[in-house]
Amino acid sequence: MSESSLSIGMLLFPELTQLDLTGPYEVFARAPDANVHLIWKTLDPVRSDRGMGILPTCTFDTCPALDVICIPGGPGQINLMDDDETLSFIRTKSENAKLVTSVCTGSLVLGAAGLLRGYKATTHWASLDQLTLLGAEPVNERVVRDRNRITGAGVTSGIDFALNVIADIYGAEIAQSIQLHMEYDPEPPFTSGSPRVAPEEILEQAKKQIAPFIEKRRLATEAAGRQLLKNN
Amino acid sequence: MSESSLSIGMLLFPELTQLDLTGPYEVFARAPDANVHLIWKTLDPVRSDRGMGILPTCTFDTCPALDVICIPGGPGQINLMDDDETLSFIRTKSENAKLVTSVCTGSLVLGAAGLLRGYKATTHWASLDQLTLLGAEPVNERVVRDRNRITGAGVTSGIDFALNVIADIYGAEIAQSIQLHMEYDPEPPFTSGSPRVAPEEILEQAKKQIAPFIEKRRLATEAAGRQLLKNN
Repeated sequence: MSESSLSIGMLLFPELTQLDLTGPYEVFARAPDANVHLIWKTLDPVRSDRGMGILPTCTFDTCPALDVICIPGGPGQINLMDDDETLSFIRTKSENAKLVTSVCTGSLVLGAAGLLRGYKATTHWASLDQLTLLGAEPVNERVVRDRNRITGAGVTSGIDFALNVIADIYGAEIAQSIQLHMEYDPEPPFTSGSPRVAPEEILEQAKKQIAPFIEKRRLATEAAGRQLLKNN
Repeated sequence: MSESSLSIGMLLFPELTQLDLTGPYEVFARAPDANVHLIWKTLDPVRSDRGMGILPTCTFDTCPALDVICIPGGPGQINLMDDDETLSFIRTKSENAKLVTSVCTGSLVLGAAGLLRGYKATTHWASLDQLTLLGAEPVNERVVRDRNRITGAGVTSGIDFALNVIADIYGAEIAQSIQLHMEYDPEPPFTSGSPRVAPEEILEQAKKQIAPFIEKRRLATEAAGRQLLKNN
């Protein structure tokens, strides 16, 4: 880590789920002397899966050294699973990073880059089993740490994840202060936020609704897994 | 409300706190047939208080009729408190909206537009008392509803707020399904997210740190309060 400031890089790719990025960004950007970089291949606006346009701040070519690299998830993740340019960028930047991290299905991208082999990790609940295809050990927890890898579960877990990252780097007091400024004292209106607690009919309906998409994702994960074996 | 789709408009103004907007956006954009509009004076990228660039989707002139209007908060809110163009736009669009809403200090902007006189409302904990200057009744809760006004507390409350809004419009099952897809089963790493629960020294330090800014905000709120009385 550089001595005077912390360099945090988040991948901003087309059809990402924007809250996977914007939740942790809000936490990271409040850390003392942190610079948060939003990284993509060009500086053109990137559209999220639901249409929000967000501006990258640097490209693969201009991105500085990173103390923390963070890969968010979302449907666009599928296109990254065999994108050599992106996987190679992630691998290179991760070599000297203090923490290599992800939110939601960003961990599948880390896995496709070969960075989770032999590591415990998590991802969105509907794709958790796919981590084994990339040599990782799926753990059904909201934030999972194994050595210098920290992975968060689905979408909103990014806030919990990022507070953990900040506590790891700056200590608990800074993280507690950021949590207070962000008034993060959640009161979900329903008990429905994970398969563990959601009403059975809501869970079954959700699974059915996303099944075709999850199978499409699985094909990409399987192909990435085969590529990893071939590269070894 | 239009019969076939729901039109939700969120104000995207310079130096907003982006998670005030991006949290609810993620919930709103997942509602069936919802169109979420990000509204500002021009279509140029808008910078958040911490530098994220986000693209508006329409201007005050091109914004369609809104079923739900939502004003997020953040330091840039101060500049809106005497911005007649913006306050007039909000007033006009609110006339025919089913729900008039805000997150964080967006409620102070609603108040400056004269839309919270005689209403219970909330805002970020550090500015809650300022609501009285605009004729509103501050309520120290995470999400406050009074007739067709729904206001959320600070920053991260926007997710709880938006799930409440969706439940109000579409019913509990749709909101529960969105909560599950977003894996919103929060596990804050610390008990520090509100003055009620934060460690005393963390709270005192936070209050001290933001005191000068809160006083700046208070001057703007007082001026807006005087303007409201003059207009009556």
